[in-house]
Amino acid sequence: MQLHDFTDLPAFERLRELAADPPDLTADAMLSPQRIREYRLSSCGFDLLYATQRVDGRVLDALQELADQAGVIDAFLAMKGGAVLNRIEGYESENRQVLHTASRDVFSGRPLAPEASARAREQLDRLRGFLDDLDQGRITNHLGEPFQTMVQVGIGGSDLGPRALYLALASQRRPGRSARFIANVDPDDAASVLNGLDLSRSLVNVVSKSGTTLETRTNESLVREALVRSGLDPARHMVAVTGKSSPMDDPEKYLATFHMFDYIGGRYSATSMVGGVTLGFALGYDGFVDLLQGAHAMDVAAEERDIRRNIPLLMAMLGIWNHNFLGMATVAVLPYSQALARFPAHLQQCDMESNGKSITRRGAPVRWQTGPVVWGEPGTNGQHAFYQLLHQGTEIVPAEFIGFRNSQYGVDQLVDGTTSQQKLVANMLAQALALAVGRPHDNPGKRFAGNRPSLLLLADRLTARTMGTLLALYEHKIVFQGFCWNINSFDQEGVQLGKVLATRLLRRMAAAERGDGPGREGDVPETALLEVAGMLPEQSDG
Amino acid sequence: MQLHDFTDLPAFERLRELAADPPDLTADAMLSPQRIREYRLSSCGFDLLYATQRVDGRVLDALQELADQAGVIDAFLAMKGGAVLNRIEGYESENRQVLHTASRDVFSGRPLAPEASARAREQLDRLRGFLDDLDQGRITNHLGEPFQTMVQVGIGGSDLGPRALYLALASQRRPGRSARFIANVDPDDAASVLNGLDLSRSLVNVVSKSGTTLETRTNESLVREALVRSGLDPARHMVAVTGKSSPMDDPEKYLATFHMFDYIGGRYSATSMVGGVTLGFALGYDGFVDLLQGAHAMDVAAEERDIRRNIPLLMAMLGIWNHNFLGMATVAVLPYSQALARFPAHLQQCDMESNGKSITRRGAPVRWQTGPVVWGEPGTNGQHAFYQLLHQGTEIVPAEFIGFRNSQYGVDQLVDGTTSQQKLVANMLAQALALAVGRPHDNPGKRFAGNRPSLLLLADRLTARTMGTLLALYEHKIVFQGFCWNINSFDQEGVQLGKVLATRLLRRMAAAERGDGPGREGDVPETALLEVAGMLPEQSDG
Repeated sequence: MQLHDFTDLPAFERLRELAADPPDLTADAMLSPQRIREYRLSSCGFDLLYATQRVDGRVLDALQELADQAGVIDAFLAMKGGAVLNRIEGYESENRQVLHTASRDVFSGRPLAPEASARAREQLDRLRGFLDDLDQGRITNHLGEPFQTMVQVGIGGSDLGPRALYLALASQRRPGRSARFIANVDPDDAASVLNGLDLSRSLVNVVSKSGTTLETRTNESLVREALVRSGLDPARHMVAVTGKSSPMDDPEKYLATFHMFDYIGGRYSATSMVGGVTLGFALGYDGFVDLLQGAHAMDVAAEERDIRRNIPLLMAMLGIWNHNFLGMATVAVLPYSQALARFPAHLQQCDMESNGKSITRRGAPVRWQTGPVVWGEPGTNGQHAFYQLLHQGTEIVPAEFIGFRNSQYGVDQLVDGTTSQQKLVANMLAQALALAVGRPHDNPGKRFAGNRPSLLLLADRLTARTMGTLLALYEHKIVFQGFCWNINSFDQEGVQLGKVLATRLLRRMAAAERGDGPGREGDVPETALLEVAGMLPEQSDG
Repeated sequence: MQLHDFTDLPAFERLRELAADPPDLTADAMLSPQRIREYRLSSCGFDLLYATQRVDGRVLDALQELADQAGVIDAFLAMKGGAVLNRIEGYESENRQVLHTASRDVFSGRPLAPEASARAREQLDRLRGFLDDLDQGRITNHLGEPFQTMVQVGIGGSDLGPRALYLALASQRRPGRSARFIANVDPDDAASVLNGLDLSRSLVNVVSKSGTTLETRTNESLVREALVRSGLDPARHMVAVTGKSSPMDDPEKYLATFHMFDYIGGRYSATSMVGGVTLGFALGYDGFVDLLQGAHAMDVAAEERDIRRNIPLLMAMLGIWNHNFLGMATVAVLPYSQALARFPAHLQQCDMESNGKSITRRGAPVRWQTGPVVWGEPGTNGQHAFYQLLHQGTEIVPAEFIGFRNSQYGVDQLVDGTTSQQKLVANMLAQALALAVGRPHDNPGKRFAGNRPSLLLLADRLTARTMGTLLALYEHKIVFQGFCWNINSFDQEGVQLGKVLATRLLRRMAAAERGDGPGREGDVPETALLEVAGMLPEQSDG
């Protein structure tokens, strides 16, 4: 694989030139019906409308060249085939394959990474058996009653993706089944979830690849204690998802254990058992399989080399255009669907942990901007909150709107001649238009500069299948950008230093609690910080 | 009042010079115990630790000059006294007072804006009476049972603040009382909240100043319909918070009506009846009064002119230093408290709607950056998500950490010698240190550049009073920055264009539904967009 620097790609200069005078969306007749019809692409049940981006044929051609020159699709195919892409050439690094797509490639019979897909299949079969046992009453609580709630204990990738997907599909839960989540080491997180929960009817699903994550270990311990206090046997209520031979991989302690593998990073793991167990419990096995099939369809569609025919590739390139060439520091993901309320939080991890990097795949410092800040909230809520800044602020924020033609519950009403669902979608379309075209006005307060780029992703309805497609779409967008920037989107070295320092502080706090005062360790910043923060016991003399 | 342009203030040039070579937090002994002890300020139960900002005495002095020259505190005093600050000089604008502080100034006996405080007092008394009636069983459902749930229907300021505060204090709910929220015009928002809710035991609190907000009107209609379908009398279950003589101000339709006033903007209204009714229901009247008292304490403390002794003023100035002089486009608010999970969403509105502006208070285009993008999620969750970018990304994100020495529920456990609460706070402190000092390393992947500024806000425990103080602290920080940038932080003209275009699209959709095809209106972008989005019925011939 070529590891060209981003700024050395021939298309980079071309794009820089084009960025000096980008297409003006406020120009007369620019946003014509023809442009709206033309700047559109359909794939896997999604329509991407991008007429409201500051691009024209020349920019799109140059972005195509950039993608080609960076070898984005070749790298993607290599990834799916099992290449060791999680590495920094010439330095100690994780040196792993990147095979989240394999967990979805279980339907074709001709998987690109057969071994990983076979393992995924094995776990799926085990999950199906477990869920059957629950359905058939072979697994129950000690009173023979069925379990109603699954509490997932995990953090980061073991929380955000599964939680976002669960909330997205909560309308499609099986009767009598629901899920809760505990992530934060904040003891109030566990306390508030456990408060009022009927533990006797609950399964606790502890998810940690290493089996050593501080938050998860601690919360597992809190929940275990709560079970015991309620007179329940933890081994009858607890399930584990962990790496083979991790400290958590202990059949004695859990009702069932499912495995995750080191070639699937946490932030890409929602379609492995990390999401599978809780989603399978809540939606049924078939619901989870629908999600996998939706994701797999996009995994295949994303192999297309023509940016005008590949949604995640085009979105990746438009993102790079806005970020690296038009200088926009952030990107807002704005789902017009309350069910997707936590999807932006999942993308924050998936995107910012993947692409918030400063070195190339060869270990050299990057000389260009890598991943943007990703943020967002559902519309129409955001319209009454931060959209003021999107329209009239001095920070230009490219927006990614996500919407659906039909609601999930189908409970709706005509008010003023339209349904709520129509109002929802109309508002989304109107925002894209307003951001793009702006409005001149004599009163400067009522003036809108326009030229604020956005794109629209539209599908018919948010189902398990659609959700799987959308998830994979964004995963690939992120990975494509990482390939383009020539960074390793699969490690997360940046989380280590905080851990080291936290451990040091906790050692000092524990010592101080034991009366083994911190003064002896000398007047160091850590002690001063603990002292000023009031986190050390009052000092007695001497 | 002087309306100087930001860049014309003499301190502006001085700060530009200083920003060319900002203090280096990675320098040897820079983050000394002495600095940590010195760069600290205590007020109203909060400690602000800011040793991890890129400032020194010279920078702080210049920021003090900037605040003085911009007349920040004078403007604040004028605001509290009832000056008409919501205006653009020389142009048609809202022309209103800005008196959210008056809704808290009801304890002193010498309020700065006596009329507004008297009105607030009147509403508070009415609320107390209503809550007493509920407590004493004088108001019940038709079966004589007490109400258990209050469903707040509102959007933007009528949702985000109240919701954030409710979640923050949910651990302190009165037994048998809880709240839910419906905001989005997405019909699935109402459907999922109503799904499984016992309407017969629920009060519905509809909140809209104008009484005409599209989302709120629509959701009120959906909820009203659901009540009727359940055989319940809406007038017995519905409460209104609205402006005097708004279309909603109709005693026939509601069990009780509370008033809000046009001199309190939505995003500053959580301490008016907009938050009061639901918070009073859930926490009790005294709980809401505690919140007001906490806010009032900060309202008074924020009058201090010395930036080293005024938390919101110092935070405002540090924010300006990072944004305008060091070039950071966003700010992350990172509460180490799961209960504050939605506080960043409230701040997004409060900050970005206030300061996402492009014209001065005289209507001239600004020639400097105004409000940043505000975003954030609770720690420690974020550490396992987007902190990778904070530590090693190419976008520098100043972080505002918020933490508490003690948990709310007090349910905790020693694991490895420390409690979860200690782990929580230690992690927060460690992150601030790690971002500041960084770490050199032979392996470039393990290198941390440091010099990423942050600050720490610490209090003893998250109570109603603390929450009120924290809310007011951020309100004032935002307003101070607006004064400094010489913008109107109190209007929101930027939301209008989207509304206009949405109305136009909805008119077309309604016409198309009636068979009154859109073709007749000509080939315009709106129609093309609806067509491409698949939001028009299939066209028949002719």
